[in-house]
Amino acid sequence: MFDKIKRALLGSALNNEAISGEKYSVLWGLPILSSDAISSVAYAVPEMLIVLIPAIGLASYHYAVGIALCIIGLMMILVLSYRQTIEHYPNGGGSYIVAKDNLGVYAGVTAGSALAVDYIMTVAVSVSAGVEQISSAFVTLKPYSVEICIVIVLLLMVGNLRGIRESSRIFGIPTYLFIFSMLLLIVTGFIKVITGAPIVHAQTPPGYYGVGSISLFLLLRAFSNGCTALTGVEAVSNAIPNCKEPVRKTAKRILLLMGLSILVILGGLAFLTNIYHPTPGEGQPALIVQMADMIFGRATVFNAAIFYFISGSAFLILVLAANTAYSDFPMLLSVMAQDGFMPRQFKTRGERLVFSNGIVFLTTIALLLIVVFKANVTRLIGLYAIGVFLSFTLSQTGMFIRLLRTKEHNWLPKALINGLGALVTATAVIIIAITKFGEGAWIVVIIIPLMVFSLLKVKKHYFAISKQLKLTAEELKDFDLEHKKYRNRVIVPIDSVNRSSVRSIRYARTISDNVVVFSVTIDHEAELKLRETYAKLNTDIPLIVKYSPYRKIVEPLLEYIASEEYKYETGDIITVLLARFEVKKWWHRFLHNTTHFRITRNLLKHKHVVVSTIPLQLNDDDDILHSEKYNPTNEKPW
Amino acid sequence: MFDKIKRALLGSALNNEAISGEKYSVLWGLPILSSDAISSVAYAVPEMLIVLIPAIGLASYHYAVGIALCIIGLMMILVLSYRQTIEHYPNGGGSYIVAKDNLGVYAGVTAGSALAVDYIMTVAVSVSAGVEQISSAFVTLKPYSVEICIVIVLLLMVGNLRGIRESSRIFGIPTYLFIFSMLLLIVTGFIKVITGAPIVHAQTPPGYYGVGSISLFLLLRAFSNGCTALTGVEAVSNAIPNCKEPVRKTAKRILLLMGLSILVILGGLAFLTNIYHPTPGEGQPALIVQMADMIFGRATVFNAAIFYFISGSAFLILVLAANTAYSDFPMLLSVMAQDGFMPRQFKTRGERLVFSNGIVFLTTIALLLIVVFKANVTRLIGLYAIGVFLSFTLSQTGMFIRLLRTKEHNWLPKALINGLGALVTATAVIIIAITKFGEGAWIVVIIIPLMVFSLLKVKKHYFAISKQLKLTAEELKDFDLEHKKYRNRVIVPIDSVNRSSVRSIRYARTISDNVVVFSVTIDHEAELKLRETYAKLNTDIPLIVKYSPYRKIVEPLLEYIASEEYKYETGDIITVLLARFEVKKWWHRFLHNTTHFRITRNLLKHKHVVVSTIPLQLNDDDDILHSEKYNPTNEKPW
Repeated sequence: MFDKIKRALLGSALNNEAISGEKYSVLWGLPILSSDAISSVAYAVPEMLIVLIPAIGLASYHYAVGIALCIIGLMMILVLSYRQTIEHYPNGGGSYIVAKDNLGVYAGVTAGSALAVDYIMTVAVSVSAGVEQISSAFVTLKPYSVEICIVIVLLLMVGNLRGIRESSRIFGIPTYLFIFSMLLLIVTGFIKVITGAPIVHAQTPPGYYGVGSISLFLLLRAFSNGCTALTGVEAVSNAIPNCKEPVRKTAKRILLLMGLSILVILGGLAFLTNIYHPTPGEGQPALIVQMADMIFGRATVFNAAIFYFISGSAFLILVLAANTAYSDFPMLLSVMAQDGFMPRQFKTRGERLVFSNGIVFLTTIALLLIVVFKANVTRLIGLYAIGVFLSFTLSQTGMFIRLLRTKEHNWLPKALINGLGALVTATAVIIIAITKFGEGAWIVVIIIPLMVFSLLKVKKHYFAISKQLKLTAEELKDFDLEHKKYRNRVIVPIDSVNRSSVRSIRYARTISDNVVVFSVTIDHEAELKLRETYAKLNTDIPLIVKYSPYRKIVEPLLEYIASEEYKYETGDIITVLLARFEVKKWWHRFLHNTTHFRITRNLLKHKHVVVSTIPLQLNDDDDILHSEKYNPTNEKPW
Repeated sequence: MFDKIKRALLGSALNNEAISGEKYSVLWGLPILSSDAISSVAYAVPEMLIVLIPAIGLASYHYAVGIALCIIGLMMILVLSYRQTIEHYPNGGGSYIVAKDNLGVYAGVTAGSALAVDYIMTVAVSVSAGVEQISSAFVTLKPYSVEICIVIVLLLMVGNLRGIRESSRIFGIPTYLFIFSMLLLIVTGFIKVITGAPIVHAQTPPGYYGVGSISLFLLLRAFSNGCTALTGVEAVSNAIPNCKEPVRKTAKRILLLMGLSILVILGGLAFLTNIYHPTPGEGQPALIVQMADMIFGRATVFNAAIFYFISGSAFLILVLAANTAYSDFPMLLSVMAQDGFMPRQFKTRGERLVFSNGIVFLTTIALLLIVVFKANVTRLIGLYAIGVFLSFTLSQTGMFIRLLRTKEHNWLPKALINGLGALVTATAVIIIAITKFGEGAWIVVIIIPLMVFSLLKVKKHYFAISKQLKLTAEELKDFDLEHKKYRNRVIVPIDSVNRSSVRSIRYARTISDNVVVFSVTIDHEAELKLRETYAKLNTDIPLIVKYSPYRKIVEPLLEYIASEEYKYETGDIITVLLARFEVKKWWHRFLHNTTHFRITRNLLKHKHVVVSTIPLQLNDDDDILHSEKYNPTNEKPW
């Protein structure tokens, strides 16, 4: 039943050989690798304004342009820095690898943890922002934002568990649509201004515009929110091996074009807001939707079509950005699991050749965030961007150290670029952590060190296990002799003499000559009856009956094993053979004692015990009682 | 850890011999056995008024007296009927037994189900009503009603799991306190009227008193609510064996005195309300608290003391009534489980000699009801009383049929009494079901048949099992010969050659000469490596390696067992030996694959398979890595 649903949802298993990907050309690599980075502009701009407007009012639009220029500058440094990462790590230069390679394992694990946190945030923020777009265009959807987000995340999960190929060109289209729609918006917006068309500013609720004055802290907080525009910039350097030959060149071109796109869209949008004064905020439509409404409106069918096209393309690219997190996050977990820092379950691909456990894990936490923060981008954004900038910092520092060490041709200017990159991103980390501390950044500030600590613990555990499992050459040699020393003894706990217990005793005989049948009674009458029926078996296997005055069932067995009567001798293994009913209907399970589970759990704590379960397949009640007249009145219960 | 908490809460286990009870004299039997019945007056009276007042206003008080008189008449018939049950069933005449004995198994199971439902309702209603009393006296507690109810139910659970003895005299005191406080209230109330003291009626919210006219339906609905006053009347007939010799006489006296107490309190309270016009309802104080306030007030310390004494004793007796459900419900379940109608887990006493599973089950459902109905007596009452009256009806009908059949001395008048009892209670069931159908009775109308259906299914299952387990004399005889036919073959699935898998293979050797080592690989390189290390073992045990192109782990093993290569021969048992790591810390469990569980679950569905688990006790990571320098950078993961 469950298997069938799974099969229908996820498709049948895929062969190992099916793993191979299409390589990205610049044309398709650009949209696929940059959807995350480009789409973040959609929330970065309004979130800058949301910080400023309630404090300083109309002046905010002016300052936002300045901050956007700073962020564009920061992005340029990043692009230059990452070009060098591409040069040095043609096999993929994720922050985890670059930091681990050059700064050591602690920095690597920190970068990995930081990035993992931000991939999760990408899903939560992008989907929430995406839904904000459509619920702004179709206001009737507004009350169901959280539910829509949940459905989208679940669809992303199912799609990714099926194995949506990130490389599929279909995923490139929304990015181009979005770039095109933004250009349309920006260009038309400017033309309207130049041609002197009247601009109608949005109605604002009273007190919407603050009347205070600007402060450094405020500017830095707006800057922090704006920094979310740069999340996703690292995507290209992760994916270098997937680029067409020459990989370095292709990747660098993609990176450059991505930078240009962000420059145009972020810059253009910031300038436009300074003219059109959109009013982002709680209960207000999404900024891009507002702008589309002010510049195109919905007066004619043609204008409405453009309006819905812009809103729709913003929604699509944001969902797509979440989808890229779905391919990057599980991959990151798998790489860390291969190094022993993550549970083994994340290491290998599932039936559909995707890292199923990582996908499910990502979904779970992203959904939790969406529900807790009610799919509110402004609230979620407090937790966002620290992780990305921390991993930028570690990766750039890694490159800086590497260049200092290798002293390759022309190393000084290169090192300066990476050094500058490290410096500015580190500064950004500190600014983000401080200015957004109260808005949720404190959670991330606590979680990342906790993660690093846990990851190191995990590796330690795996290493400790490998130590305990390792065989010396000596031990290997003696293998065939050794086993003859062992003696195997079997205890068969029974309730009563019936087909099931007799079957168990028989099996016990086949595996050892040293068998004991064991039973616990809570009254002496039952003991007599048991001994009587057991005698009928006419066997020489001894029956031990323990009276349990406290009606405990498991303990007397454990005590017996530990007791003098059944003394453990070195090398002995005690096999405890438990019969278990396998019922046909799920609810029948509740009709049988759970003693089996309790005994097993307790016995497995012993060193020299093997727990064997012998299942008895019960038939369906109706099959058994089919032929005869069953009357509940007469029948004695079992 | 868990065990320690349990021990501290519940006390240590009690010996079988500790089971023996004090016998009830009339003096202590009366309060202990009648707390449930007498306490129900506390909610029956206001719930009658709550139905009437919004419809017909002040006339309600008048009608309530009439309805109370009807209910007292009904009670008298019940007392007479139950005297005869006591005569015939000196070993305890619960409805389940009387109905099953005389009307057959279906009627018995119906009576048992109905009673079980109402025991659960008793806990929910009594505790909610009790908390209403104290939160009316201390209004600051009002917002926490649900929480207080939950705490009380949990305390009742813990107390009963520890084994509070119902027979303990301490449980008789609150009943006497309540009877005394009610007499004080009623007598003082009448004296005040006779002496002409002024009566101040309570302030009521506008529209509190309805202005409609009376209808039959309304009267019957008020009657239905009033019938809750009779819940608990059956308690004496259940507990006859616990009465002092001569048991019949003692029990009858207790029953009579209980009837008298209810007569006085219900009648007296109804008459008083007709004078004092208390105003029960949502947001209003509890009726008894209102009456105490009007008759005594809190003007002097002495008056206030009486006021709090009355409120407090009402609270105490209601909680005590819930406690009697805690001893009766698990006992009923146990009796039904002994007949095979309930899961076996309810049959036997736990460590503290109480029916722990029944107690926990009762608590769970009662808590659920309290939370869902927000501890609101008026809402809960919709579900109440049908069960009790249905079981009254079945029990009285049973007595009627019995007398018709036995034709004992003086049978005709006796049969008439039981017949009348059956008739009036059946009428009450119909009235309650119809008038309260929309208020929640529909839930009970659905649940009782469902329960009956399930209980019959349970018995059928147990019977089908006993058929399958039964051994013929023939089978018993051949026992010692039979086992020699069996052959035992062992499959040892391994991941790699390590200390754990080598230990498994060695154990396998001791239990059979026919051992196969089995492994699944998802790439050919791993297979080569495995074969290489396995060769070092220098053993003749064959190694089978299956390549799994779909990365499935469990399925290839199952396929191998089912395959031609490993053909099953009649009588063979295939033992699959699984190694399992037993880790020291709880979170380490997440670091290991759950394949073990999946394999076990799948294998246990087979007919001729035994699943053996060989645990490997892992040491604490720190113990292993203690002596050496562990460096996460250098160590290869496992």
